[in-house]
Amino acid sequence: MVDIAERVWNHRWKIDPIVRSLIDTDFYKLLMCQTVFLRHRNTRVTFSLINRSKDVRLAELIDEGELRQQLDHIRSLSLSRGESTWMRGNTFYGKRQMFRPEFMDWFEGLRLPPYQLEKKDGQYELTFEGTWPEVMLWEIPALSVLMELRSRAVLERMGRFELQVLYARAMTKLWEKIEVLREVPDLKIADFGTRRRHSFLWQDWCVQAMTEGLGEAFTGTSNCLIAKNRDLEAIGTNAHELPMVYAALAEGDEALARTPYEVLRDWQEEHEGNLRIILPDTYGTPGFLEHAPDWLTSWTGIRIDSGDPVQAAETAIRWWESRGEDPREKLVIFSDGLDVAAMTSLAQRFSGRVKVSFGWGTLLTNDFIGLTKGDALAPFSLVCKAVAAEGRPTVKLSDNPRKAMGPEAEVARYKRVFGVGAQAEREVVV
Amino acid sequence: MVDIAERVWNHRWKIDPIVRSLIDTDFYKLLMCQTVFLRHRNTRVTFSLINRSKDVRLAELIDEGELRQQLDHIRSLSLSRGESTWMRGNTFYGKRQMFRPEFMDWFEGLRLPPYQLEKKDGQYELTFEGTWPEVMLWEIPALSVLMELRSRAVLERMGRFELQVLYARAMTKLWEKIEVLREVPDLKIADFGTRRRHSFLWQDWCVQAMTEGLGEAFTGTSNCLIAKNRDLEAIGTNAHELPMVYAALAEGDEALARTPYEVLRDWQEEHEGNLRIILPDTYGTPGFLEHAPDWLTSWTGIRIDSGDPVQAAETAIRWWESRGEDPREKLVIFSDGLDVAAMTSLAQRFSGRVKVSFGWGTLLTNDFIGLTKGDALAPFSLVCKAVAAEGRPTVKLSDNPRKAMGPEAEVARYKRVFGVGAQAEREVVV
Repeated sequence: MVDIAERVWNHRWKIDPIVRSLIDTDFYKLLMCQTVFLRHRNTRVTFSLINRSKDVRLAELIDEGELRQQLDHIRSLSLSRGESTWMRGNTFYGKRQMFRPEFMDWFEGLRLPPYQLEKKDGQYELTFEGTWPEVMLWEIPALSVLMELRSRAVLERMGRFELQVLYARAMTKLWEKIEVLREVPDLKIADFGTRRRHSFLWQDWCVQAMTEGLGEAFTGTSNCLIAKNRDLEAIGTNAHELPMVYAALAEGDEALARTPYEVLRDWQEEHEGNLRIILPDTYGTPGFLEHAPDWLTSWTGIRIDSGDPVQAAETAIRWWESRGEDPREKLVIFSDGLDVAAMTSLAQRFSGRVKVSFGWGTLLTNDFIGLTKGDALAPFSLVCKAVAAEGRPTVKLSDNPRKAMGPEAEVARYKRVFGVGAQAEREVVV
Repeated sequence: MVDIAERVWNHRWKIDPIVRSLIDTDFYKLLMCQTVFLRHRNTRVTFSLINRSKDVRLAELIDEGELRQQLDHIRSLSLSRGESTWMRGNTFYGKRQMFRPEFMDWFEGLRLPPYQLEKKDGQYELTFEGTWPEVMLWEIPALSVLMELRSRAVLERMGRFELQVLYARAMTKLWEKIEVLREVPDLKIADFGTRRRHSFLWQDWCVQAMTEGLGEAFTGTSNCLIAKNRDLEAIGTNAHELPMVYAALAEGDEALARTPYEVLRDWQEEHEGNLRIILPDTYGTPGFLEHAPDWLTSWTGIRIDSGDPVQAAETAIRWWESRGEDPREKLVIFSDGLDVAAMTSLAQRFSGRVKVSFGWGTLLTNDFIGLTKGDALAPFSLVCKAVAAEGRPTVKLSDNPRKAMGPEAEVARYKRVFGVGAQAEREVVV
């Protein structure tokens, strides 16, 4: 039976909004936002969209008017009472009141700041300028909007049953991965796929399929809205933007060299336990670990987000051993371009040597590879990064030079300061 | 938004009825029913369920109480006004008023007669006795109920997402078949899958997918309810039960030998054009054609429902040629256990030599082969046949001895009367 009122109501919407909530974002964004709010409230930053997949010509695929409508809709969002209650009342990582009242008061009043949008060479130049705690919250919704508008542009040309079969194939594909993962002993895996998801509804489906298919092995999702709606753990700690902005603000080389540790010292003041996860690759993992202060060795684990994951994990294990720590008590979180084969082999290789967990992103929530003609729905490498702080450019080196960013001279300076030599290049798939 | 009233309403149902309409049946049943009503209204017949797949132990899988509820529900059905209007007002095979007012008046007042149900050796013995026009209408709903209850018994043990992925896989499987069929030049194909469908909703999905995926090449469905709901052609002509009952009633061998032609003579009085399709295999195709009267050569085509389809079609072509007919003007309808590979190769082989069309049954509407553990949803060979008329056993020889049925002595007599010698056995898959 058709619910007439609902049908009329639905027809009233001028657009089908992609992002419908300020907490349809990654949990670590909110954690980092609180840190930034408490310590660097007035720091001015610029975030920019960067499409590393030049062959996906977004400005030709996506209508500018539609993109503006979606972005404008995001600017109209504010935290709902239920969302605020969830953030204030929930236990995250075993801790109550993770978000402090003063942060929540600010967040409740927040609207996202303006954006600048232009077309250039078949791509969109999308830039956000303003204070750090506000601008940083654009990253995830901006990415999800562009990813989903691209999906819609492709889906628009398909028939009704063709569409249903497309999703049938995608579901089957994911389920077959889940069936493989089910056989991995002591698996711990979380959804990290918000930013490059095919669509919100698809991510929501994937998360629920993981919940049923993997049971306890599925530890939660980075997406706060889905975590809230589906009663799951919200997962995540910190990201590259913290050291990148800290570094851009540093005066002189010596100060620069200290910034990666200052970020974590600040973090340590706020967080404990499983939130104390080192992200060591912003300016090269080997140097970071070599010069790391002793207090960092007591941290719970390391997240590996670039470079050769086996090599990076071996480096981390050796580092813990050299500092008198037992790696079997430590956690390695792999989160870079993972799929089933890599996870299976990493789990097997490091079983019994270190605790392992996986943050599964794009190939969980956007594996439409091979499902359409010309692979028009294959995921692509879109990022939205802090490119400047207080007018100074940011730099990222990473353990994979293809993920590096920043002006050439600054990259050279950072390499010198952090002692980064030759690095092996790895293809950036997603 | 939940439609509360609908939810409450749905919860009121004591069962989820499988067959919800008297026209959820094959079109040819209604055509034959009219013939039988007009000519043999008071002939008493017995129809029985026969599970040729002994390894599928239906009485262990399906609860007897549930089966009785479904069968009782079917007995509560009567023709709705809209269904009657569709039958009275529609054009079938280009003809108006295919169903005569006197038949419709009777059909509108019809309720299906009682059934007898017992368990034996892990199987159900399900028997229908009464007058032919009433009892014959049990065949299709009885089969669909048993097929779907078996599906439900297997599905009951599956998780929510496991279920969704199961259907995703089945959809993908069918769509891939459609994509192959799309490439077959001049394809004509209809859905003949009601009797051994996975479920009603699944058949409905398959029909709609065929409509979108094949366009004009999809000529319609044998299922009257789906044809009505989806505005498609209802497809079908006649079946083995006519010669089987005529034959059982024949007095003596000479009369018996004439019955296959008497059936078609009666049919010819009622129908023309594309409804004049010979089903020659009840007592062996070669003998049937050899002794066929000349007026049969003017019929539109032949349906091939057992034996080697290539051989049977070649036999038909030779027969037409020997009787001075141009086979290119004739139609061959293949309808026995078809799947994509067979259809593709038959279409190719007979292209330009004879008009070809396909009645695609079980492997259209119930191809869950390989989709569950232990293949618990694979289709199986269930039939419901006229086993007696006026207390005399019926016999079917078919072009495949594995499809033969009837008491041994009678089978021997029929073989003698119809001159059927050695026949090649073919596996009966579905």
